[in-house]
Formats: sequence, structure tokens, C-alpha cells
Amino acid sequence: MVVSLKDIAARAGVSLSTVSNVVNGYRPVGEETRVRVQSAIDELGYAPNLSARHLRLGRTGIIALAIPELDNPYFAELAGAAIREATSQGYTLVMEDTAGSYEHELSMIDNSRRQIVDGLIFSPVAVSREDVLARPPATPMVLIGEGVYDVPHDHIAIDNIAASHVAVQHLVSLDRYRIAFIGAQAGDHRQSAHLRLRGYREALAGAGLPWDPALAAPTTAFGRADGLMAMRDLLARTQPPDAVFAYNDLVAIGAMRAVAEAGLRIPEDVAVIGIDDIEEGRFSNPTLTTISPDKEHIGRLAVQSLVARIEGKPVEPPYDVQPPFRLVTRESTLGGQRPVRT
Amino acid sequence: MVVSLKDIAARAGVSLSTVSNVVNGYRPVGEETRVRVQSAIDELGYAPNLSARHLRLGRTGIIALAIPELDNPYFAELAGAAIREATSQGYTLVMEDTAGSYEHELSMIDNSRRQIVDGLIFSPVAVSREDVLARPPATPMVLIGEGVYDVPHDHIAIDNIAASHVAVQHLVSLDRYRIAFIGAQAGDHRQSAHLRLRGYREALAGAGLPWDPALAAPTTAFGRADGLMAMRDLLARTQPPDAVFAYNDLVAIGAMRAVAEAGLRIPEDVAVIGIDDIEEGRFSNPTLTTISPDKEHIGRLAVQSLVARIEGKPVEPPYDVQPPFRLVTRESTLGGQRPVRT
Repeated sequence: MVVSLKDIAARAGVSLSTVSNVVNGYRPVGEETRVRVQSAIDELGYAPNLSARHLRLGRTGIIALAIPELDNPYFAELAGAAIREATSQGYTLVMEDTAGSYEHELSMIDNSRRQIVDGLIFSPVAVSREDVLARPPATPMVLIGEGVYDVPHDHIAIDNIAASHVAVQHLVSLDRYRIAFIGAQAGDHRQSAHLRLRGYREALAGAGLPWDPALAAPTTAFGRADGLMAMRDLLARTQPPDAVFAYNDLVAIGAMRAVAEAGLRIPEDVAVIGIDDIEEGRFSNPTLTTISPDKEHIGRLAVQSLVARIEGKPVEPPYDVQPPFRLVTRESTLGGQRPVRT
Repeated sequence: MVVSLKDIAARAGVSLSTVSNVVNGYRPVGEETRVRVQSAIDELGYAPNLSARHLRLGRTGIIALAIPELDNPYFAELAGAAIREATSQGYTLVMEDTAGSYEHELSMIDNSRRQIVDGLIFSPVAVSREDVLARPPATPMVLIGEGVYDVPHDHIAIDNIAASHVAVQHLVSLDRYRIAFIGAQAGDHRQSAHLRLRGYREALAGAGLPWDPALAAPTTAFGRADGLMAMRDLLARTQPPDAVFAYNDLVAIGAMRAVAEAGLRIPEDVAVIGIDDIEEGRFSNPTLTTISPDKEHIGRLAVQSLVARIEGKPVEPPYDVQPPFRLVTRESTLGGQRPVRT
């Protein structure tokens, strides 16, 4: 039987509009009446879309995921995993794109939306550790990515230095000696670029290869166009690279396009590897070798941690998690042609 | 001077927690007190993140964009335009991925979130016209895409039949005679696939080319893998196509991969055209010819229409808008190699 608001009104002995006010929150309702209506809702098993359970506990049942680059498929794929987990836990996940804006990121943590969302999964790139520390005690927050470290929040980010080692070592194992890095950053505001550059330099040193600053190409952002332009510059040098480790898959795809435009072969003339394992790189020509962070694991864990804190389950102090990653070798470093498996 | 909640409490002659309740909506506050606090807020020029104006009008300042496929970059690019327009109008846009689920889509229109969002931009694929008509009078809603027609809501969708004509005519102009369509749908639940198939058939007839059902390849979804598998089947036929019109760019990119794996050349052996103009097709090898809907226009107009209705501005009756589109020719039909312009 489908329970209607009318049934609840009859059971609680109140008007239909009072029930509606309790369920939909249109107008304030006195505490005693609210309790009576809520009891009727519970007894009759009425299931509004924002479940009675959330309402009773003063929650909206909505959690937010704030990301810095909606147009990077990495975040869409990560969000997919987070959405599935949120749904299975009875929450709705909404996304917000901060575009990496400092003001927008501040507005995510200033707690002004506590009446709208029960908690926040946040991938910051612009706010500082101090900004996060200054946040008032508020709705639970879980951090993902490399923007901010050492704050009292759960934090999930791969080991970027280790990932960079694996990428560079793969190129070294293919007898590449002039390995470029595209995506080097001058400032200190995009921490993952620093960590990946550091991993690249350490891996070169570990392989006995010299550090050549001319092969560490800076970019202003981390999109396809950035990879394309940086690679054009690198190929125009008297001693172009024979391999490229790109900051991420989008940069790698732009770099591959520049190699093709130059009439060079991948990987014979230039081998290319990225990070992220976005679907685009599984279908590109050639397919793209990459470091694959476990996005399913990251998305699921972020939601699980957040929901545990929202619901006040016994949880440990904030923890740092480094999710697994793996090397996925494809045509852009191994060559040949391997049919895409679907 | 930064105005604090304490300043407001002093001016209004109420406690700090009362001010906090008014500003953050934690607990109901009597009407008289609320007005007093609001006056103090206005006089002192306090600017909470959810602006005083929205609060005073009983709004949250948040609008939602519900899309069916977060992993299709088309929607991320469209959302980017919508976000920019929402920001410029003083609203925050949050996104929700329905994954095309009937239940999830119903939950978007059942009005259960009216206390959370001021309005909804909705791209439906699963709910019917009847479902939308059964929606209670509620927060404003603007529809985008081809899921539902003839309902009393603003509706924005390109002319799919005209777009398909342009795509097929371009292939005909390149002397292609065996033109396949990938993305044909058997059911009636994905209306744009039907419209594009219809446009394809009409354009073939207009060019005096025969209709060959074997060249209209059905797919279960509209991703890269769908395009790859359908193209493999088409290429295995005794008479393979010499051109492909793909339902969208993702399908086209999967089809291009299948052509490459078969050792054939694009466009010499098979020319390929898609719809959407996602960035991926500007950097692929070869770059992808496509029908480019004006995503900037669509996203901006959707937000403008929604905000006008939220704010009760004098607006016309619900209207249907067909935003512009244009043919963008690239290597996948014209051949050669043209450096990507950045």
C-alpha cells in the first residue's frame, strides 16, 4: 500500500498542510506537532524521497563533491564511483565545480551550506592548509587529492612520488634516455605537479640519468592544449626527447597529437606515458600507457568515510589513506597494435 | 569593515544564537524576530555566502542541473557554460547524475528537493511526457535535450533532423555512397537517436542513395565501446561502409579506433563524422569532423530562462528554443593533416 500524506494527517490528527509542512519543510511546525506527525510517518512507513530517517535526524540526505576541473574526465570517473557508493548508503551526491577559484573554494569550507548538505568531499587546489585549519567546526569533510596536507580531516591521495617513479622506470626499461616531463609548475599552489616533478627527478637519478632542466616543461594548466604546446616546443629543440612522462592523461594526449603533427612515430621516436587512466586513453590512436589510480576505491572510500562521520559512527581519528595504483602498458610505450578489449 | 553575527545581534537586540538561527536556518525563528534580524542584516550590510537577498526571499541561491551521463564530456562542457552564467547571476549551480535511471529521474521532478534548490535544469532520457505532466506545480524547471516534448516548460534542444541532414550531406559531398549510421535504437526511450536516424534516412533519400538497413547499426548505449563494437561488425561485412555518421562524438571515436585496428585509413577508406564537438575530437588522431551544437548558448540560455522564472520576472509562456549548430570539418573527413589551433 502506498501511504499518502492524507493517511498521515488522519493518523496524527492534524491538517494535511501541517503534514506537508513537516515533510517538505515549507513552514516551521511546533515541536510537539512535529513529533506527532513524525510518529505517524514512522508507524505507517511513509517513504518520502528525502527519507524519513534523514529528516528525523535533521539531515538532508545530500552530500556534495567539490572538484576543481569538471572538464577533466578523471573527476567524472571518480564521481561515478562516489555516486554509486552514496546511492547504496541512501545519500544523494551533488557535484560542484570550483574551477580552482580561491573564492569558490573558500565558500565550500565556510560552512554556509550546512543547512543544505550533510557533508563535503573536497578536492582543493587553491586554498591553503591555514584556510582549512581556520574552518569552524562544521559538517564533516573528507579531502581528496594533493591540495592540502596535515589537517584534521580524512584525506585520500595516491603516493605521487611513487607513481612517478613507476612511470619513469617504465620508460627507462624501454631504453629511453632523454625523458621529458610535461607539467612542471613554478609556484607552490598545485602540489601534485611538484610531487610528480620530484618523483621524476628522483627516478632519473636512480637510473643514473642526468637532470636536464630543459626537459622539464612547465605548463600553465593541465589540459590537452597545454600538452600540445609544450610538446611542440620540446620537439623543436636540437635534442628532442625520446620519451615523455606527462603530468596527466590529458597532457599526454595533447603531447601525442604534437608528435603525430611532427610526422614522428609513437613510440618508436617518442614514447608517451600519463597518469589517470581516463577512458579516452583506452581508445586513442595509439592507446595510451598510464599510471592508473584506483578511482573506484578512492570514490567509494571517500563516501564511506564521510557517511561514517555524518552518522556519528565510532570512527578513528582523521586518517591519511594512499589508495593503490598500477602501471597499465599500452601502445604509446610498447608499440604494435593491440585490439581494445571491451 | 567585516560585519559579524555579533554586530547583528547587538543591533537587533537579540541573542547571537537567534541571529545564527535566522542566517543558517538551524531552527525556526518567530516572524517578528526574523524581520528584526533581517533589518539589522540589511542595515549593516552583512553578506553571508548565501546572500541576504536569497535568504530574505526564501531562496537558497542554488539551482540544480540533472544530466543522464556524467561520463559524456558533452555534458561537462555544457555544464561549464551553465555554471559561468549561474555565477554571474548570483546563483550556485550543482550537478546531479541520474545515470538515466527512471527512479532517479522521477526523484528529480517529484519536488521533494524544493527546500534545497530554487529550480532545476533537467535533461531527461527515461521519464515520459506523462511523468512530467503529472509533476505538481513546483519550483521552476527548464528542459534540455530530446527526452520530452510538448510539456509546459521551457525547452531547449537542437533540431536533430536538420543536424543529421548536414552531417550526411557533408559525406555525400565527398562522394561517399555507402554511408552507415551507428547508434540506431530499437525502443522509443532515447528520442534523439530516433530523430538522428530519421534525419539520416531523409538525407540519404534526398541524395538519391538507397536505404540499406544493414548499414544502420544499433547500439545499447552511446559510448566509445559501443562505437568500436558496431564498427567492427560493419567492417566485417562483405560490403563495408565508406563513411560513418555516428550518433555522437564518443561513438565516432570508438568507430575511428575500429578503423585503425582494421588497418584501414581515415578518411581514404572510411570517413567519420560525429555530433557534439567535444574537445577530445579536436585532439584525436585524426581530428574528428563533427556537428557542433552551440553548447555555450544552450547552457547560458537554460540558466537565464530558469532564473527569470525563479525571480518571477515577466516572462512569456513556456517556449521551445532550437539553438544553432554548425558543421566543423576536420581530418576525419577532409584528410591531410592540419595542425590543431590552440
